[in-house]
Amino acid sequence: MTRLSQAFLPTLKDPPSDAEAVSHMLMVRAGLIRRLGAGLWTWLPAGWRVLRKVEAIVREEMEAIGCQEMLMPVLQPAEPWQKTGRYGIEEMFKLSDRKGSPLVLAMTHEESITTHVAQEVRSYRDLPLMLFHIQTKERDEPRPRAGVLRTREFTMKDAYSFDRDEEGLARSYELQSEAYARILDRCGLRWYRVESDVGMMGGSEAHEYMAPCAAGEDAVALAPDFAANVEATELRAGDPGPNGGTVEVEPAIEVGNIFKLGTRYSEPLGATFLDESGVERPVVMGCYGIGPARIVAAAIEQGADERGIVWPASLAPWDIHLVSLAKGEGEERTAADALYAELRDAGAEVLYDDRDAGPGEKLTDAELLGCPLRLVVGRRGLERGVVEAGERAGGEHELPREEAGARALALLQGGDD
Amino acid sequence: MTRLSQAFLPTLKDPPSDAEAVSHMLMVRAGLIRRLGAGLWTWLPAGWRVLRKVEAIVREEMEAIGCQEMLMPVLQPAEPWQKTGRYGIEEMFKLSDRKGSPLVLAMTHEESITTHVAQEVRSYRDLPLMLFHIQTKERDEPRPRAGVLRTREFTMKDAYSFDRDEEGLARSYELQSEAYARILDRCGLRWYRVESDVGMMGGSEAHEYMAPCAAGEDAVALAPDFAANVEATELRAGDPGPNGGTVEVEPAIEVGNIFKLGTRYSEPLGATFLDESGVERPVVMGCYGIGPARIVAAAIEQGADERGIVWPASLAPWDIHLVSLAKGEGEERTAADALYAELRDAGAEVLYDDRDAGPGEKLTDAELLGCPLRLVVGRRGLERGVVEAGERAGGEHELPREEAGARALALLQGGDD
Repeated sequence: MTRLSQAFLPTLKDPPSDAEAVSHMLMVRAGLIRRLGAGLWTWLPAGWRVLRKVEAIVREEMEAIGCQEMLMPVLQPAEPWQKTGRYGIEEMFKLSDRKGSPLVLAMTHEESITTHVAQEVRSYRDLPLMLFHIQTKERDEPRPRAGVLRTREFTMKDAYSFDRDEEGLARSYELQSEAYARILDRCGLRWYRVESDVGMMGGSEAHEYMAPCAAGEDAVALAPDFAANVEATELRAGDPGPNGGTVEVEPAIEVGNIFKLGTRYSEPLGATFLDESGVERPVVMGCYGIGPARIVAAAIEQGADERGIVWPASLAPWDIHLVSLAKGEGEERTAADALYAELRDAGAEVLYDDRDAGPGEKLTDAELLGCPLRLVVGRRGLERGVVEAGERAGGEHELPREEAGARALALLQGGDD
Repeated sequence: MTRLSQAFLPTLKDPPSDAEAVSHMLMVRAGLIRRLGAGLWTWLPAGWRVLRKVEAIVREEMEAIGCQEMLMPVLQPAEPWQKTGRYGIEEMFKLSDRKGSPLVLAMTHEESITTHVAQEVRSYRDLPLMLFHIQTKERDEPRPRAGVLRTREFTMKDAYSFDRDEEGLARSYELQSEAYARILDRCGLRWYRVESDVGMMGGSEAHEYMAPCAAGEDAVALAPDFAANVEATELRAGDPGPNGGTVEVEPAIEVGNIFKLGTRYSEPLGATFLDESGVERPVVMGCYGIGPARIVAAAIEQGADERGIVWPASLAPWDIHLVSLAKGEGEERTAADALYAELRDAGAEVLYDDRDAGPGEKLTDAELLGCPLRLVVGRRGLERGVVEAGERAGGEHELPREEAGARALALLQGGDD
């Protein structure tokens, strides 16, 4: 669906000088993101395709558990934040409008969702309820770093559950927890769920979802049948594990977190319901966050090799990176054009490198961008009647020219070539 | 796909006391939006479904003309705005980070897109290029009004074109113009394209897309084969039209605008390219905005009747509003459940009113919410072997019970019942 000669996909030979994390280097080099300011990143078209794939997976799994999507503003009145005592949070951007009224840029949406629920929910019949949105967040981060891993603006999925009691909250928490497992599995991550403390969110219980990788700022303590947040445990690397074996500590990226909030927000904001006997009770809440950008970065960190990104199939910007080695018109070009059309018509997402560039540059870019399957249509292969296919995760094949389209699609499906 | 008993879809009998515009009243009453603060609105699940349908149409039509989607930040450094001389715009929110660095909340993205293009585009070979994003915008609006029509936070699609010369710009402008016609037609709007002045955007030529309706803040002068922005013309209502007939002036909502920017931004921000002879030239730009929320409001304004919203089929939150009149279990409930399952399996988007409420409330809500087809499964109809079908735009039918699903789907497709 995309011809590279017309795409805004600027790859770089060298990483930015300030980049340390593998994901930061590769995302910039592969043309996925560009920096607009400190901790402020633009998602270029290829990167945006990836981020939207994560969002689509998140959305599907939220809908599958009956969680309803909506959208709340980023810019918000200060008042609800004053009511919950969170107006003082140092990382929150504060500003005034032209009339001098205080506003904030939301970094999380408990205050707004609870305000709405307080207005609309009346009775136990309106519960349970689960709502989510995928929205921009702003945070006055003192030390933005590592590309999209720690930024001042980012997209989050926040879900919120509303129940009549702790038992209901436990059920909602479990539903979300199961959805998180499916989301992270579908995104191809290696991940752990660990207990964590509740921090600025308040509440009674919380878990973090950790994706181990070198660039992680957090750490997980791992042993057989055991995973824990290093901050929250006495365990040390080399200690015996609680279920045998030895504890290893790995750096990890926090890609999601879930909290049992209880009545931390419903009480100050007046979100109550009438139970069967007409007694007014505060709604019992949970909140469930996931960071799509961090999932993208973690997938890169966990999969990359020395040549570039190796995408999980579910997140790749395109299924197939089709390289034509042709210069100008002729049989080579015609064969590549025909294969492009065939794959596209079959519904595959194809990036077609039709640029007037050398084979070295084209093949290097294909490795860097890391789509699951690379097809090369060149004169030498055509003379032998084949198209070269390389699986990015390993595995080289020669596909008979006449069957190249069908065989490539079979390779994508995990079948034989 | 949605059971009303579990949905967050709070309808109201009475409009908010401050509401004057029909769309404002109906969007609040039908549970599409709720106010979080002055000019700050939350899109509840039903409203968000509608807004996402508009966004999907916009996205498809942008992609169809080779315009590539990306995402740029809302929070931005002040510097590029200082370079273009737009840092002083009064409606722009300004703030500082914890280090005291000046930041802005972008209300439009010429500065950021041009900064990126300046870094990446080198040669005439990199042009033409069209990019877009669908992003939150913030505007320190002095007089928020009319629900989502004039707000302080809103979503916009902005597209930007980059060409080597005015001739290229004219082609890009025409492509966008054609896409806009398809978008507004697909959204079911009655609309006019009128010349306008360039305002704060700068540039040489501009058009606005106007949807006539009572709540419009702008106005269009209309006569046979003629439409113009009232601000930009000497015409007055009652004057003879330039192509015959008489001029009528109608209030209208501006749902989109397109601008030939020329080098207004590329020069101060250094976006240049080398032409074939190695001469450095400024890139020639255009920009193309569309407001999905205003399209939603205009569709409501143009279609509504005294009972509520009448959605164009392409924007309706659900295709079918299925009302069960059953109280408790029994044949009535079983028949409605079966019809719900059948329609859902056939791929229709169905809102199923399975609430424990009276028929009056259910039917009133169905009219208010305005989905194209209402099906009513009740005891009296079942006794006669029929399901009642009402097209929201007019037309009542009785569908034989056994064929109700298939006949309802045929009605949606515009066939006979």
